[in-house]
Amino acid sequence: MVRLYTRSGDKGRTRVIGGTRDKDDIRVEAYGTCDELNAFTAKAEAVLDKQLFPDIAAELTRIQHELFDCGSDLASVKEDAVWKMDDQPVSRLEKSIDVYTEEAPELQRFILPGGSSAAAELHICRTIARRTERIITALAKEETMNGEVLTYINRLSDYFFAAARVVNSRMNVADVEYERSAVVFRAHHDKT
Amino acid sequence: MVRLYTRSGDKGRTRVIGGTRDKDDIRVEAYGTCDELNAFTAKAEAVLDKQLFPDIAAELTRIQHELFDCGSDLASVKEDAVWKMDDQPVSRLEKSIDVYTEEAPELQRFILPGGSSAAAELHICRTIARRTERIITALAKEETMNGEVLTYINRLSDYFFAAARVVNSRMNVADVEYERSAVVFRAHHDKT
Amino acid sequence: MVRLYTRSGDKGRTRVIGGTRDKDDIRVEAYGTCDELNAFTAKAEAVLDKQLFPDIAAELTRIQHELFDCGSDLASVKEDAVWKMDDQPVSRLEKSIDVYTEEAPELQRFILPGGSSAAAELHICRTIARRTERIITALAKEETMNGEVLTYINRLSDYFFAAARVVNSRMNVADVEYERSAVVFRAHHDKT
Ligand code: B12
Ligand code: B12
Ligand code: B12
Ligand SMILES: C[C@H]1O[C@@H](n2cnc3c(N)ncnc32)[C@H](O)[C@@H]1O
Ligand SMILES: C[C@H]1O[C@@H](n2cnc3c(N)ncnc32)[C@H](O)[C@@H]1O
Ligand SMILES: C[C@H]1O[C@@H](n2cnc3c(N)ncnc32)[C@H](O)[C@@H]1O
Ligand SMILES: [Mg+2]
Ligand SMILES: [Mg+2]
Ligand SMILES: [Mg+2]
Repeated sequence: MVRLYTRSGDKGRTRVIGGTRDKDDIRVEAYGTCDELNAFTAKAEAVLDKQLFPDIAAELTRIQHELFDCGSDLASVKEDAVWKMDDQPVSRLEKSIDVYTEEAPELQRFILPGGSSAAAELHICRTIARRTERIITALAKEETMNGEVLTYINRLSDYFFAAARVVNSRMNVADVEYERSAVVFRAHHDKT
Repeated sequence: MVRLYTRSGDKGRTRVIGGTRDKDDIRVEAYGTCDELNAFTAKAEAVLDKQLFPDIAAELTRIQHELFDCGSDLASVKEDAVWKMDDQPVSRLEKSIDVYTEEAPELQRFILPGGSSAAAELHICRTIARRTERIITALAKEETMNGEVLTYINRLSDYFFAAARVVNSRMNVADVEYERSAVVFRAHHDKT
Repeated sequence: MVRLYTRSGDKGRTRVIGGTRDKDDIRVEAYGTCDELNAFTAKAEAVLDKQLFPDIAAELTRIQHELFDCGSDLASVKEDAVWKMDDQPVSRLEKSIDVYTEEAPELQRFILPGGSSAAAELHICRTIARRTERIITALAKEETMNGEVLTYINRLSDYFFAAARVVNSRMNVADVEYERSAVVFRAHHDKT
């Protein structure tokens, strides 16, 4: 039988791929947060009606595997590391985002996260993806890491936003606009 | 069609209101955590029985708008910023807290977060409000920001506590006291 | 009536046991995260089918009390503090982990967090326990604290993993292996 606990980490030191680190190391924080995001993605998937949303359910499983790929890349300190993440998953996410954005009602102002229970879970994933992105940004300043991971996590938060909207739309739940919002979403966004 | 992703943030830099910041900037951490709290508030609302708790459901929607107001204030670095948050929402929260505290059984010792599913969600909101407060406290030390936001988030965590208790009380679920708790809640609290 | 809000913390300063601290102090971050973990544990408990899982439900309640013990120890800055946590809870967790590991299918590769809704909640607890461990690790470097708390929280994350697996197993939900996983779990693990 596998003995799950090895007791070796009881004093705050742990193994990474190709080395050891303190548990409060920024790298451990990064893949630990990625793991947290993975768990919340699982929750969103568990709540989602598979009949109504076969496309999103399948996509969420794919994302879980990719979050593990991200975790592997972030956990490795090997000089000759071969990265698992490349730019393919980002392209796939972008396609889904465009499809979902077409399907959901047009958007001009910020909307309150929420609506249906599944949409609320996806908004939670969105904000935890953004928390993950913030910590990876800090890691990237200090240590070598795979830049594709950062791009992927950035796009992933937009994916969760688009998915949350399409879930509400298919369930006939209207998103509530933030009542003091300016017009913030624009077709040809002026990037000054 | 709005194109949700602009790709401009793929390298860890982003726009705030009136400037740009690194994504691991403490200010971005602050309104990002506010956004996370907003998403969890949505979840609590989705779980809540609207028949039994019309008052709390309405209040949670109000809070979501106010969390956006907080986010706006925190995201702005304009010299001449006009703040969205003032002291009115805090007064309203205090009134609700007093009403809920009267309705729920009296309290002397710490209680375990939980009970019904809705109460558990509200306790989650309570602790994430407190996480938000901690990061805003750090921001306030370093940069200009609207002090009303800090007061509001502090009171909000007490609101979530009071709401969780009244939810259990109306559902006839008894809160479980922490078994090794001292008497910690007192009517006329000695603030030494 | 108890007045829940004292307004004394509106400017970012607060009381600990035997002193005061800024709210963004690492110690406050540590027991605040412990409190967050406690709330998520409550959520997992609320979702769990009590008929099918009387053992895990009871264990989760026990864990909630122990997380309060951890919180007490972390919140105290008294020179002559008497700690609440000792090594007994860790031994009990280890026994449960071994029992659950026997009951669930054998494990060689990483699995995706998730499956049933209850298992997803337990995986969320697992990752938040690990977040708690990271911040306590940072605290332990800087200030006096009870080392048993660190060991307990480390083992607790393994407990949540084992519990998630047994929940899926009893519900006949198969855990999905991470598709690019190496063989990572081993009976006699080489600790080099
Ligand atoms: C702050 C902010 C947030 C905050 C919200 C703040 C809060 N209240 O809590 C948070 C972090 C929550 C957030 C989240 C998101 N955001 Co945002 N956000 C911004 C930001 C920085 C400011 C928006 C704002 O409030 N502006 C205040 C208004 C008053 O200022 P303004 O936009 O400059 O507009 C004024 C003037 O310029 C003028 N004006 C401007 N345009 C025009 C056009 C015409 C014709 C006229 C007459 C006048 C005029 O009128 C306005 C009113 O005075 C913008 C970027 C930016 N600097 O604009 C992105 C931005 C709006 N966000 C964006 C996105 C994508 C999102 C998210 C989907 C990201 C995600 N994946 O989670 C979510 C959606 C959240 C939701 N629930 O709807 C994108 C939208 C892209 C697009 N296609 O339009 C932007 C533009 C950033 C970017 N990528 O470049 N965001
Ligand atoms: C640590 C702490 C927490 C921790 C809990 C710690 C843990 N175990 O995990 C956390 C962060 C979880 C927490 C949460 C909350 N807390 Co708190 N917490 C405290 C704190 C700092 C210490 C409490 C404690 O454990 N004391 C240990 C005991 C042994 O010490 P003691 O209280 O000093 O009492 C001893 C002696 O003084 C003496 N004694 C004291 N009074 C009296 C009176 C008499 C008549 C006698 C004879 C003797 C006696 O006997 C006691 C036993 O030896 C107090 C502030 C403080 N310094 O007291 C606030 C405090 C109790 N919390 C408070 C609040 C509001 C909350 C929350 C509702 C906040 C929120 N919105 O989330 C939640 C509720 C959580 C819950 N689930 O019930 C308030 C209560 C206000 C009130 N009206 O009474 C306090 C007083 C802080 C404040 N604002 O001033 N808290
Ligand atoms: C990174 C990592 C994680 C990451 C996952 C990374 C990601 N992709 O996101 C995260 C943080 C998510 C994680 C979580 C967990 N992990 Co982990 N993790 C690791 C770590 C550091 C690396 C694993 C890895 O990917 N290795 C990459 C492979 C390619 O390298 P390798 O293992 O060295 O194996 C290669 C060679 O050495 C060779 N080889 C090795 N052994 C053998 C044997 C034979 C016979 C042969 C022929 C060849 C061979 O072949 C392999 C392929 O090339 C290991 C410790 C370590 N350094 O190994 C722990 C480790 C696997 N984890 C462990 C545990 C317990 C867990 C958790 C249960 C902890 C928890 N409570 O949450 C969870 C489970 C998660 C899940 N969902 O299944 C334990 C397992 C203990 C055991 N009894 O085996 C380990 C060993 C750490 C420890 N305590 O010592 N983990
Ligand atoms: C939509 C707005 O959200 C903010 N933003 C961009 N990335 C993140 C992140 N990872 N976390 C929090 N906020 C972020 C920026 O201010 C952007 O303009
Ligand atoms: C009830 C107790 O909770 C602690 N406390 C006050 N504010 C926060 C916060 N934002 N996060 C965590 N803990 C906090 C203080 O120790 C207070 O006395
Ligand atoms: C299983 C793997 O998880 C990592 N690890 C160990 N403890 C933590 C923690 N608290 N948070 C995140 N990751 C952790 C180590 O890399 C270990 O080898
Ligand atoms: Mg982005
Ligand atoms: Mg407070
Ligand atoms: Mg561990």
